[in-house]
Amino acid sequence: MKPLAHPMRNERDWEALAGEVFAELRQLGFDGVGITRQAFAEGEAAAMAVMERLAGREGLLAARDAGDNLVVSLPDEAPGPYILVGSHLDSVPRGGNFDGAAGVLAGLMVLARMKSEGVTPPRPVRVIGLRGEESPWFGKPYIGSSALLGALKPQDLDLRQRDGARSLAEALAGVGIDVEKVREGAPLVDKRDIAAFLELHIEQGPVMVAREWPTAVVTGIRGNIRHQRILCQGQAGHSGAVPRWLRKDAVFALAELVSRLDEHWRVLLERGLDLVVTVGIVATDPEDHATTRIPGEVAFSFEIRSQSRETLEAFYVLFETECANIARERGVKFVFDRRQDAAPGRMDEGWVKRLVEASRRLGLPAETIASGAGHDAAVFANAGIPAAMVFVRNEHGSHNPDEAMEIADFLAGVDLLYEALTKEP
Amino acid sequence: MKPLAHPMRNERDWEALAGEVFAELRQLGFDGVGITRQAFAEGEAAAMAVMERLAGREGLLAARDAGDNLVVSLPDEAPGPYILVGSHLDSVPRGGNFDGAAGVLAGLMVLARMKSEGVTPPRPVRVIGLRGEESPWFGKPYIGSSALLGALKPQDLDLRQRDGARSLAEALAGVGIDVEKVREGAPLVDKRDIAAFLELHIEQGPVMVAREWPTAVVTGIRGNIRHQRILCQGQAGHSGAVPRWLRKDAVFALAELVSRLDEHWRVLLERGLDLVVTVGIVATDPEDHATTRIPGEVAFSFEIRSQSRETLEAFYVLFETECANIARERGVKFVFDRRQDAAPGRMDEGWVKRLVEASRRLGLPAETIASGAGHDAAVFANAGIPAAMVFVRNEHGSHNPDEAMEIADFLAGVDLLYEALTKEP
Repeated sequence: MKPLAHPMRNERDWEALAGEVFAELRQLGFDGVGITRQAFAEGEAAAMAVMERLAGREGLLAARDAGDNLVVSLPDEAPGPYILVGSHLDSVPRGGNFDGAAGVLAGLMVLARMKSEGVTPPRPVRVIGLRGEESPWFGKPYIGSSALLGALKPQDLDLRQRDGARSLAEALAGVGIDVEKVREGAPLVDKRDIAAFLELHIEQGPVMVAREWPTAVVTGIRGNIRHQRILCQGQAGHSGAVPRWLRKDAVFALAELVSRLDEHWRVLLERGLDLVVTVGIVATDPEDHATTRIPGEVAFSFEIRSQSRETLEAFYVLFETECANIARERGVKFVFDRRQDAAPGRMDEGWVKRLVEASRRLGLPAETIASGAGHDAAVFANAGIPAAMVFVRNEHGSHNPDEAMEIADFLAGVDLLYEALTKEP
Repeated sequence: MKPLAHPMRNERDWEALAGEVFAELRQLGFDGVGITRQAFAEGEAAAMAVMERLAGREGLLAARDAGDNLVVSLPDEAPGPYILVGSHLDSVPRGGNFDGAAGVLAGLMVLARMKSEGVTPPRPVRVIGLRGEESPWFGKPYIGSSALLGALKPQDLDLRQRDGARSLAEALAGVGIDVEKVREGAPLVDKRDIAAFLELHIEQGPVMVAREWPTAVVTGIRGNIRHQRILCQGQAGHSGAVPRWLRKDAVFALAELVSRLDEHWRVLLERGLDLVVTVGIVATDPEDHATTRIPGEVAFSFEIRSQSRETLEAFYVLFETECANIARERGVKFVFDRRQDAAPGRMDEGWVKRLVEASRRLGLPAETIASGAGHDAAVFANAGIPAAMVFVRNEHGSHNPDEAMEIADFLAGVDLLYEALTKEP
């Protein structure tokens, strides 16, 4: 990775500040292997306290909203709808230091620089440190933003914490959230007060490293269609005694299915569509399989992701069609479990344009990228609030202790937010 | 299945005899689910006793050879090398009633008919009921025939019985076999006394049912090349965040490998080669896999079988080449475990011709077939003794309680042996 030459163009040593805050976060969150900041619990609260102290040192006002998220503003904030900038403060178990926290720190550094340089933004800017974004803690992601915007379902409140210790309702009540309001689906804030939501986040894939982009602007958050477990059922048999023309080999059928989907995928990418296809789980039955037995059954998972609902539906039809073709040609049967859907989150076009133009002014790559992973920004977008994201280059993906973001790239991302928030479009 | 009109063309009710013997064997061997006749143990001994009693009732001479196998001959046998006809008397656990036993009964019925009709065969014929053919009992197949012909390896004698109760050496000693001779690799019989070995066996695949052949003549016993566990290693990653061009997806790589092998296989069959290809085991790592994770590794087994050593080697080279191609194209790596080889067993051309001609004379299909499963006949063939096999149509494969051989088809097979053994070529 090539670090940038001139990030955060003013006299303060922002690099040192960022380094210190990340070091403090790392020390507090280290679990012996990686970083653990449990949602609605001590780890998340400790990270929140770090951010709160930083806000105080920088002369900013820190408070909690009705969802017990940290909210920071300039002391002389103008009235009217505000732009929220931030991300989440929890992590997955044994995760990395930057996933989430980098976005909150970025927002605080934008506000600190405005304060430090005496700049008043065209529209009020507030920083939010959200709770409970990661799914491992209660089996569901985006809890903090969903509760805030009235997007939790009543049955979500019965979800149990990973260790079984308490329900989500108990966890929310434990930090003073009005659980009845959440149950009714009522937002905890007036959504009309939020003019936009901007989120800086590390990229969780390898594209920006490969392309040598320190920052990029997110065009959309991929939605998905999933099957957790599909069975391909053929007929078991003696591996030596059944000739090819009489076989109903479940593994050969699945191999052909995957190869055909791979070819469709390749062609659709060439046409410029956004799509990823994954068969993450494949397994013949250990009770039944053998080197010398034609596999009569194989189980597999299936997932497609795209920013476009149309692409998802079109590829899903291709998938169903190829399953039917192969079933007919090879004498096998595909048994599907429940299809799961998650809608794509569209980023606001105006904000994407603004961020791309700001990138260009700063000499950063004016490049866009899709987010394959989900983010709070999608919850804001699907609640009708214009949302946008900046990705910062990061090696080794996320949700693991090996996340590697260069501070120089991070500062470039902060620069980009600052530029977009201080200049009218 | 269409039963034949005129099996065993003489006045005795051979159908009733066969039915009674199979019924007795079934009753003795039934384990609550299927048939269990443990090798070098009570189940096998009980089946041997059934055959011994039948021999006595038919006026034949029953004895044991130095391998404690049952050997039956005509009372007025001529001197000189004899033709052995038979099969094995053990079964797999929860297996079927016909696998093995049918071949021994067929031999006895051939001798009984010679006795009953006062026919002296051109060459002496002896029936053998072999011990220990099935691999589950000591983890190795063909123990009885291998011990008899001096083909066991010294280390085989240390193999433990399935339940750990005793070693193979102890099991052999338990029935009076000279274990030291076996250890030295010395045959327990004079191989020069055996002019040929003929074995009738149920087909363990579906070809004869599909082709409507009650009997067929085996041209060879497929050898094989196997890998129990190959790893395809790529790179794990977030299923939403890594685009196609940066993926090293182990499952997509394996799918392409299997699809390419399937296509090569199809082409080779069109050229008339004998080959079956099986990937019986496929598994991503349950500790690591997820619907939302690009699979970084998948384990699989690989087996090819053919009657031709050249075909096996040629296809294995194709396999290695495709692995190398896909490794290069997809950025994955194939890690191979030890290659296991079993040589094909060639049936004697003269005997195959004799059996095909006898089939034609009897109005049976003059058809040949490869044996995908292994048989004692291969041990005899590889010991330099001319060997041949007759397959009898059977539904549902073998090694399970659902074996389904029609008695009429069995009697046609007995007819065929009788015809070939009583007429000089």
